[in-house]
Amino acid sequence: MHDAKSVELAVNTIKTLSIDAVEKAKSGHPGTPMGLANIAFELWAHYLRHDPQDPTWIGRDRFVLSAGHASMLLYSMLHLSGYSLSLDDIKAFRQWGSKTPGHPENFETAGVETTTGPLGQGVGNAVGFALASKMTAARFGMPTEDVRIFCIASDGDLMEGVSGEASSFAGHLALGNLIVIYDDNRITIEGETELAYTEDAGLRYEAYGWHVQRIDGHDHKQIRSAIDAAIAEKTRPSFIVARTHIANGAPTAHDTAESHGSPLGDNEIAATKKAIGWDAERKFFVPEATSELFRERAVELARDKAAWETRFQKWQSANPKLADDFRTFMAKSAPADLYEQLIKALPAKDEATRSHSGALQQVVGELVPSLVGGSADLGPSTKTLLKNSSSITRHEQSGRNLHFGIREHAMGSICNGLSLFGGYIPFASTFLVFSDYMRPAVRLSALMREQCLWIYTHDSILLGEDGPTHQPVEHVWALRLIPNLFVIRPADALESAAAWAIAMARKGGPTAFILSRQKVPSVQRDAQFDPRSVLRGAYIAQEAAGARPDLVIIATGSELQLAIAAKKALELDGRHVRVVSAPCLEQFASEPIEYRNAVLPQGVRRVSIEAGVTGPWRQWVGENGITIGIDRFGASAPDSVLAAKFGFTAEAVIQKIRSAS
Amino acid sequence: MHDAKSVELAVNTIKTLSIDAVEKAKSGHPGTPMGLANIAFELWAHYLRHDPQDPTWIGRDRFVLSAGHASMLLYSMLHLSGYSLSLDDIKAFRQWGSKTPGHPENFETAGVETTTGPLGQGVGNAVGFALASKMTAARFGMPTEDVRIFCIASDGDLMEGVSGEASSFAGHLALGNLIVIYDDNRITIEGETELAYTEDAGLRYEAYGWHVQRIDGHDHKQIRSAIDAAIAEKTRPSFIVARTHIANGAPTAHDTAESHGSPLGDNEIAATKKAIGWDAERKFFVPEATSELFRERAVELARDKAAWETRFQKWQSANPKLADDFRTFMAKSAPADLYEQLIKALPAKDEATRSHSGALQQVVGELVPSLVGGSADLGPSTKTLLKNSSSITRHEQSGRNLHFGIREHAMGSICNGLSLFGGYIPFASTFLVFSDYMRPAVRLSALMREQCLWIYTHDSILLGEDGPTHQPVEHVWALRLIPNLFVIRPADALESAAAWAIAMARKGGPTAFILSRQKVPSVQRDAQFDPRSVLRGAYIAQEAAGARPDLVIIATGSELQLAIAAKKALELDGRHVRVVSAPCLEQFASEPIEYRNAVLPQGVRRVSIEAGVTGPWRQWVGENGITIGIDRFGASAPDSVLAAKFGFTAEAVIQKIRSAS
Repeated sequence: MHDAKSVELAVNTIKTLSIDAVEKAKSGHPGTPMGLANIAFELWAHYLRHDPQDPTWIGRDRFVLSAGHASMLLYSMLHLSGYSLSLDDIKAFRQWGSKTPGHPENFETAGVETTTGPLGQGVGNAVGFALASKMTAARFGMPTEDVRIFCIASDGDLMEGVSGEASSFAGHLALGNLIVIYDDNRITIEGETELAYTEDAGLRYEAYGWHVQRIDGHDHKQIRSAIDAAIAEKTRPSFIVARTHIANGAPTAHDTAESHGSPLGDNEIAATKKAIGWDAERKFFVPEATSELFRERAVELARDKAAWETRFQKWQSANPKLADDFRTFMAKSAPADLYEQLIKALPAKDEATRSHSGALQQVVGELVPSLVGGSADLGPSTKTLLKNSSSITRHEQSGRNLHFGIREHAMGSICNGLSLFGGYIPFASTFLVFSDYMRPAVRLSALMREQCLWIYTHDSILLGEDGPTHQPVEHVWALRLIPNLFVIRPADALESAAAWAIAMARKGGPTAFILSRQKVPSVQRDAQFDPRSVLRGAYIAQEAAGARPDLVIIATGSELQLAIAAKKALELDGRHVRVVSAPCLEQFASEPIEYRNAVLPQGVRRVSIEAGVTGPWRQWVGENGITIGIDRFGASAPDSVLAAKFGFTAEAVIQKIRSAS
Repeated sequence: MHDAKSVELAVNTIKTLSIDAVEKAKSGHPGTPMGLANIAFELWAHYLRHDPQDPTWIGRDRFVLSAGHASMLLYSMLHLSGYSLSLDDIKAFRQWGSKTPGHPENFETAGVETTTGPLGQGVGNAVGFALASKMTAARFGMPTEDVRIFCIASDGDLMEGVSGEASSFAGHLALGNLIVIYDDNRITIEGETELAYTEDAGLRYEAYGWHVQRIDGHDHKQIRSAIDAAIAEKTRPSFIVARTHIANGAPTAHDTAESHGSPLGDNEIAATKKAIGWDAERKFFVPEATSELFRERAVELARDKAAWETRFQKWQSANPKLADDFRTFMAKSAPADLYEQLIKALPAKDEATRSHSGALQQVVGELVPSLVGGSADLGPSTKTLLKNSSSITRHEQSGRNLHFGIREHAMGSICNGLSLFGGYIPFASTFLVFSDYMRPAVRLSALMREQCLWIYTHDSILLGEDGPTHQPVEHVWALRLIPNLFVIRPADALESAAAWAIAMARKGGPTAFILSRQKVPSVQRDAQFDPRSVLRGAYIAQEAAGARPDLVIIATGSELQLAIAAKKALELDGRHVRVVSAPCLEQFASEPIEYRNAVLPQGVRRVSIEAGVTGPWRQWVGENGITIGIDRFGASAPDSVLAAKFGFTAEAVIQKIRSAS
């Protein structure tokens, strides 16, 4: 335990580093780091087990700053703890190319576990970390059995629905290794939380089945005893309501909304430093005693890490097979010939692509132990249950199937946490229309470059009777707009296999599967067709008969069959029609220009067919092309009726092409 | 009070109508209507005040079936209660063009208050209704002072974060006129709620500040006494946990997950009818005694309605000015010359478009009493506070400013409720990147054709230091993909005025405002420019000098200044450049082809400039056009640095056009 004076010195260092950095950047959030400095000090000085020299050590505790706007708090702690984050990095807060962006970005800064800022997401990620740690320990034992997850959440994090969903799920699964500290400072951007937020958050977490404590967030003794009790509680996640004061220690800004999102200003900073007896002129100052305190902590941590390494070595020696499996798991390995293996296992019968994908997923699951996931209560419809695995419950976590409940947004956020933890390639499934419910998490998976699989079924108005509330129209394109997200809409079993192969090979980002509810026929491809061409995102499924094509029809998913029917009819008219299947436009766009031009020759008229909005298809068919799709909301009726009414029959498509070309 | 036998008969009628309709459609959800039949009977036979002859009567109680998949329950009640919904309509359940689509759609069926199905939304809408009723009563008094809101919610509704957000908000505002009945049937699609949902929902609602009761949902006496107590409770919203059994009354399907989403099958239906002593062969049967019961209820309701009319007449006579204001309010009237009035009030200084819009909104607020709304805790940043109005609190609801808290999704859902209630044109503001958090509600506003204003600021990477988590890239186009949503991105004060004019005139759908954080210069337009051309969505801001244009640059928002700078430089090169400003592509697309061709002449090369994804711009610039935008995530740095790094400077744009054309 440290004496009160050295604690105070360290806390003041955290506060002044934060306010100096915000001031220099002329933008940022100074109040929250000040209010949280006491808690952060205790966490990093006494509890958090980590290794600044080895930031990706699987056995470390995870710290999640869900209140990402308080990024300077985290950067201050990383700097003091000896991570590769210098005072110069802190001085470059919020500047181009720095390790200290406005909100914490795990892909920019070692020691940052996840990217936060969009509120509530960090809580979901933390639940994912806690779950991953439990699941890994249940499967492999020692490597992650001691991992704890610490999360700091703000009022905003708790107001967002995603954190409520995730917390209900965490209580359900009794994630006793999760500790969320609620920064109850009662201040938001618009003023006091009294304006909009007066619920009893602690009681709410009791309702979720959490262990709840209430403390003064500036009282070090209370902070320590609450964290001790939370760690001791093994069967419930812990929620610590810490009453804090924003901008604590700033004479005037203290407890004000202004201190939330604006620099304090030179005068207030000077007054703050004066109040603690510091030189008002000295900026970015780290007293030697504070450096020394964290150096001592680093020595303890290195000792703990070395002990872990020793245990890990012993565990490996005692469990050679398991250790081998663990390495495979951690590498997220998939067989190099996965696609070929999947092709051997292709379902023979005509089915919906959701069924094809579901059948292939069983094979992938056997080959790739990293694959885990579940559905937002639509497993029987989305066909994503891994049949040879059990379901995760509060009593047993060695299985691979998760039941997320009707909580799409938390599902996304939790899967991001699973992926970030290490070892997991998570999948999450729901109806395509409900991708909107989890879009912020999908975006973050793309930004963070995580290999998450978002499996969306019931992919067009052709799902039928459920009607326009359930019928996606704009969603496929809305997903295609997200940078670094691959979107794959397979047309049959073979393309479903390609979807899995692409997604499993794609380590630097997420993949969305777009799958039909309705049955689709197997595509008859040309004799010279090479199955590997599907992996290029778009390919010639049927070449024009007899001559060079004078028309190219590009289609995706269930509409490929319409393109093939149209080709047949139009060739009877004397046209020469090539059918291009384009399951993954992002992959195709990244292919060499020669290949792209070979598939879509310049100067040949193009048609696109996809049962969704048409506007963005112009980039693929050009100004003189023909786009066939649907630019309005759907309707409730059987799918065959909808196909007829909205022009998704062979006859309607043929008619449309004939009259337009 | 009705005797037990007639109650049982009516309940069985509700159940059998529902299962017969699902069976005939061969799709739908039979179990939930059966489980809820007792509660629905009590609500419609004793409590709900409404007028089947006048479904839009402002003084009616509102009933929201948040569990929209149980649509047949609602259709059964509407039929029995005498709405224009015949047995033939019920037989056409889930068929093309019927009044009985798969999920309730308020724009298809009289008596359906809102469109539900996407779970959780109905709870948010119900909170909006409750709030609207209180606000209207606070402003006008009598017309809505007795309105109660009844909502039935399922497990799925409660698991979704949006309902949690909305319920926390309802508790905060003490909406005592809201009664949510929770259909606690413990069954979801994947199986028992035990799989994923074991929190204490009642306790959670106590934490939100609600009045909570727990009952047997099949016991009529308990149902009535709980509703009585809920109505008597005036200072808190009420939550009734009704333990029910899904498919109650079906011998085998009872309490099974299968009964949730699949027809029961002929055998089970026959067994169900046999168990209640009904003829198994008779379908869609309404016993005369049940018809008579609801006819009697209709007489009571008519008497109540007449009494209300009398009170309303008296109120009008006693309050002629207020009654006049009420009519204006209900008509959602805005002055025909709103645009001209706004032009007179144009802010003179250069400001960010968020500031321009915020200043103009003050004027609109004065002219349009229907305008109410708020922000998800970003009012000081989004500039949407109505300065001459007070804030809504639990004690005082006559103001027009709402503090939604950091709850974007509920904000959207509640605003939909405000709009559906009647009289309100709601606005809701947050940062553009967080439009993702509320996208399901925005989609529903477009589907329901509600005049909601979604005000999004901080509209590009040029917001600066907050970094990629806060920088929209794909969002403007993602919104443009939603059918029936207008998206307006003004370039300066004048275009901000046009945005307000378009949005206020647009009665059949929502409008999204896309506004800059950073300051923008006033656009210098040609002398012959007509301000009314802005209302056409796109117009010639600066015509090519000297000759017909050989290049057309189309730009939106803050990038219009880059187009103007590029024109100047390129004309020095000898080019003839037209600058088209395109604040609203949806409006422009609906203009006559002659106008569109006049603005964007065929055969002239085009350039688009917008600080967002470029792909969909191809539909406006064609295959040979040039698109200038950003197709990756942004970064944390000051806006001037980002502009330089990502090519949003005049120099970079000029260079790009020069090298490409």
